[in-house]
Amino acid sequence: MKNYKIVIQYDGTRYDGWQKQGNTKNTIQGKLEDILQKMAGIPVEVHGSGRTDAGVHSKGQVANFHIDTKMSCEEIRDYINEYLPKDIGVLSVEVVHDRFHSRLNAIGKTYEYRIVTSKIPHVFEKNYVYQYGKKLDVQAMRQAAIYLVGEHDFLGFCSLKKMKKSSVRTITSIEIEEIEDEINIKITGNGFLYNMVRIIVGTLIEVGIGDRKSEEIEEVLTKRDRQLAGFTAPSSGLSLLKVYYNS
Amino acid sequence: MKNYKIVIQYDGTRYDGWQKQGNTKNTIQGKLEDILQKMAGIPVEVHGSGRTDAGVHSKGQVANFHIDTKMSCEEIRDYINEYLPKDIGVLSVEVVHDRFHSRLNAIGKTYEYRIVTSKIPHVFEKNYVYQYGKKLDVQAMRQAAIYLVGEHDFLGFCSLKKMKKSSVRTITSIEIEEIEDEINIKITGNGFLYNMVRIIVGTLIEVGIGDRKSEEIEEVLTKRDRQLAGFTAPSSGLSLLKVYYNS
Repeated sequence: MKNYKIVIQYDGTRYDGWQKQGNTKNTIQGKLEDILQKMAGIPVEVHGSGRTDAGVHSKGQVANFHIDTKMSCEEIRDYINEYLPKDIGVLSVEVVHDRFHSRLNAIGKTYEYRIVTSKIPHVFEKNYVYQYGKKLDVQAMRQAAIYLVGEHDFLGFCSLKKMKKSSVRTITSIEIEEIEDEINIKITGNGFLYNMVRIIVGTLIEVGIGDRKSEEIEEVLTKRDRQLAGFTAPSSGLSLLKVYYNS
Repeated sequence: MKNYKIVIQYDGTRYDGWQKQGNTKNTIQGKLEDILQKMAGIPVEVHGSGRTDAGVHSKGQVANFHIDTKMSCEEIRDYINEYLPKDIGVLSVEVVHDRFHSRLNAIGKTYEYRIVTSKIPHVFEKNYVYQYGKKLDVQAMRQAAIYLVGEHDFLGFCSLKKMKKSSVRTITSIEIEEIEDEINIKITGNGFLYNMVRIIVGTLIEVGIGDRKSEEIEEVLTKRDRQLAGFTAPSSGLSLLKVYYNS
């Protein structure tokens, strides 16, 4: 059996997220496993680098699986793409060393969040942005973002009330770009808690609209209280952009 | 009553084209007229610059209508956008002189057609491109396009067998650009027959894949025979980009 690493894009709009859960097969993982089972003749488990929630997109999700096949990597890619629905696509397939695990070996991830600040609808991007429709103070948002960069306990930016494991994570960068009527936020870190990116974005939007001060971010971090943070920004604007590995 | 000119974008995927027809209200024109009737309190007729077929998109369709209102142009735009589904959006509203008619005064149009030549699915663009999946000879396509530019009888590139009026049109330019795994064709002319752009694109694709020679284009033009032209490329790849007016 060889270990294959794949990079996958998907428009998450129609799906219940990445991860197979209970009886629903309407997940990205579920779709991939169905096709690989057909290809390999036996059940195949696909390990993703992490979950993405219902409605969240991916431009670079990474997964791996073990199968025994004589097909080349390109043939595997084309086979999977032929059977996948049009809103999921495999960009690349490569053989990796046997112990590579897309989740356990991931050292970081970049997420992207897109906000449209004008009232004019972006009809071709409707499923990929948050159509907020109001001007935001990007300078204030950048100021607030500075408080988040670094190693912190992000429990206040997590939808789960209790974490079994540590809720300490490191955010290595937050880039906020404004291009015409769109604000693009890229957040890179070594790991993210449940809904963490969307709550960070919601909090930054509240800073940008003038409903809260940048300094309040510090309080959310020290008090670790979800109630003190902002709203959870909608899933449509969020994409997993890239997953990082050593070497 | 004032005469208003609007510029509209739409993702045509879910619609039966621009024009209201019989009982179906599932057209862009139908959606706009419903909202304007609600706004004005009386039926309003919306004149488009021309039809777009089912599944065809617009980045710059132009229409006009006469209403009596105290609302500003910006208020009208925001009102319409609030009631429109997310896949239709009004970019701008302006008052124009009383005799302006978006179809009768149009002097030209540019259409864009997008072809993906790789097998890798473009998941975020799936509704806006033709996922052809094979390499095309762009130089040969450009060579073939030269035969089409100028004033010709385009009946051979029309799905209707007979035209009540003249089938002579002028194509002023065909630009074919290749960017990574996408070929983008922009066709500008003073008017287009039914399915003309899609049949031109289908014929250029057959030249690009090596199934026919560029010189055959000349025969289609002189013999005016639809059977001699190529296939009708799918609607998903086609967008009305711009409509031109004098002054």
